[in-house]
Amino acid sequence: MTAGALPMVVPAPDLPARVRIHEVGARDGLQNEKTAVPTAVKAEFVRRLAGAGLTTVEATSFVHPKWVPQLADAEELYPLVSDLAGVDLPVLVPNRRGLDRALALGARRVAVFASATESFAKANLNRTVDESLAVFEPVVREAKDAGAHVRGYVSMCFGDPWEGAVPPHQVARVCTALRDMGCDELSLGDTIGVATPGHVQALLALLNERGVPTPALGVHFHDTYGQALANTLAALRHGVTTVDASAGGLGGCPYARSATGNLATEDLVWMLHGLGIETGVDLGRLTATSVWMAEQLGRPSPSRTVRALSHKDQ
Amino acid sequence: MTAGALPMVVPAPDLPARVRIHEVGARDGLQNEKTAVPTAVKAEFVRRLAGAGLTTVEATSFVHPKWVPQLADAEELYPLVSDLAGVDLPVLVPNRRGLDRALALGARRVAVFASATESFAKANLNRTVDESLAVFEPVVREAKDAGAHVRGYVSMCFGDPWEGAVPPHQVARVCTALRDMGCDELSLGDTIGVATPGHVQALLALLNERGVPTPALGVHFHDTYGQALANTLAALRHGVTTVDASAGGLGGCPYARSATGNLATEDLVWMLHGLGIETGVDLGRLTATSVWMAEQLGRPSPSRTVRALSHKDQ
Repeated sequence: MTAGALPMVVPAPDLPARVRIHEVGARDGLQNEKTAVPTAVKAEFVRRLAGAGLTTVEATSFVHPKWVPQLADAEELYPLVSDLAGVDLPVLVPNRRGLDRALALGARRVAVFASATESFAKANLNRTVDESLAVFEPVVREAKDAGAHVRGYVSMCFGDPWEGAVPPHQVARVCTALRDMGCDELSLGDTIGVATPGHVQALLALLNERGVPTPALGVHFHDTYGQALANTLAALRHGVTTVDASAGGLGGCPYARSATGNLATEDLVWMLHGLGIETGVDLGRLTATSVWMAEQLGRPSPSRTVRALSHKDQ
Repeated sequence: MTAGALPMVVPAPDLPARVRIHEVGARDGLQNEKTAVPTAVKAEFVRRLAGAGLTTVEATSFVHPKWVPQLADAEELYPLVSDLAGVDLPVLVPNRRGLDRALALGARRVAVFASATESFAKANLNRTVDESLAVFEPVVREAKDAGAHVRGYVSMCFGDPWEGAVPPHQVARVCTALRDMGCDELSLGDTIGVATPGHVQALLALLNERGVPTPALGVHFHDTYGQALANTLAALRHGVTTVDASAGGLGGCPYARSATGNLATEDLVWMLHGLGIETGVDLGRLTATSVWMAEQLGRPSPSRTVRALSHKDQ
């Protein structure tokens, strides 16, 4: 570039001044990897993400190693990153056993993982929606008693591979139950990437009506149908300031239908910075981190921004 | 799917009821292909696009074969598709010679291709911006005299690889010149894909101020940084109802920096249909067309929606 830097910064009306990016690459991104990633590489990934300016970096999951062998090293990993100053390091906890392991290591930001649909609750958690909520209730209570901040993930908020379109009122029931338990924050997941902007606005509006305030809501979009950033824009217009994203678009295989790539953090940052929205992220350092991680995994990043910024050959 | 069809249709306020998709795959998509595409395949592609419900299908370019050998068969191709009923088949004409060739074949929708920046005018047209406008002036006049509808493409409206960010007033000067010549419609091109939604809104607002009404404006976004659909949403909110897109995301190589993939028509249609916006397009037939074309070209479509809908194995 010889002139004005890109993206050109042009704010739009009615958008937040600052967005908190909840970086999920190290947990959601790596949990489906077929390649075994050494613990030291994961720790370096988390540290580089923090070094790029991300202040919320989900570090790992204390799920039983039988279910997610990729993250079986949570006990080893967490102490390797817990010294990072000024960075929140939430971890996923599926049950009381997982919570106890996380708390014992000093974790004070935890997340539970619920489903808006019966089909996915059954497939992923082997429980009904209500049974899974009953499991989470004492987990959330214990976490709150320990002084932890609790995030509640709600998956399949817009569509489900078995049930098709998911009506907002069905999602709202799960969300209000998680709030009633004490969850500080909810993350609305479009797990199969089918949402469109009007659907996003409608769900957010309904949740507000049901007593869930916008500051307690984060959005978690997948780019399976290329909709993630447009949906993010719709959420920002509604006032949402917490957006989940995965460095380099890590997470599942972008070439298969069931594997629904996360919104790439770099693509998100490009838009937010163009809109003059503060994130604290250094896009160059973040892109370099994703390029480095792609080398560790042996395949290119699916993020369009990472590809555009890292192909210096043209 | 066993239940509600996807995407779920949820309109958003303040968006148009109908969008005209200006399909550019057969021209913009194929003009950089290294693979030689037989004329009969191109004709079949145009016919299938029309069969999928697209009513504006840019067919080819009457540029000198020396510059774009990929489209050197314009004279052979056009008569193979010009019988399509109810479908507009615009063609690109770089100069009076090209216009005369197109008019002789009965074309009555033509497009000229201008640049908002001096660097790209020099690189692409080997002229200054003003010199290129001087070349277009008699082309547009003759086309209008012949009763043709004239579109003016304006490239590099948001950023330029040599000049960086492009200020809106610079774009407005070229746009108003093209309107003053008689162009019925302008297509605002983000040729390197760097725009963000605030920038889009600002340019559209400035053009309105300078006397170019929104119905005369189309948008042409590239997905190089993953921004195309979010930018489209911003344009729709401004009232734009003409959106350029390329079936399957054809156009350049998505893996190289300089090659800036067009917005995929399927990704656009997914969003528009989710928003309840009419397009007339049958997404299944369109996806099948892109899958077929990808087979002809010997490489997969970069469209995320095409990938998601065509991977039936999972």
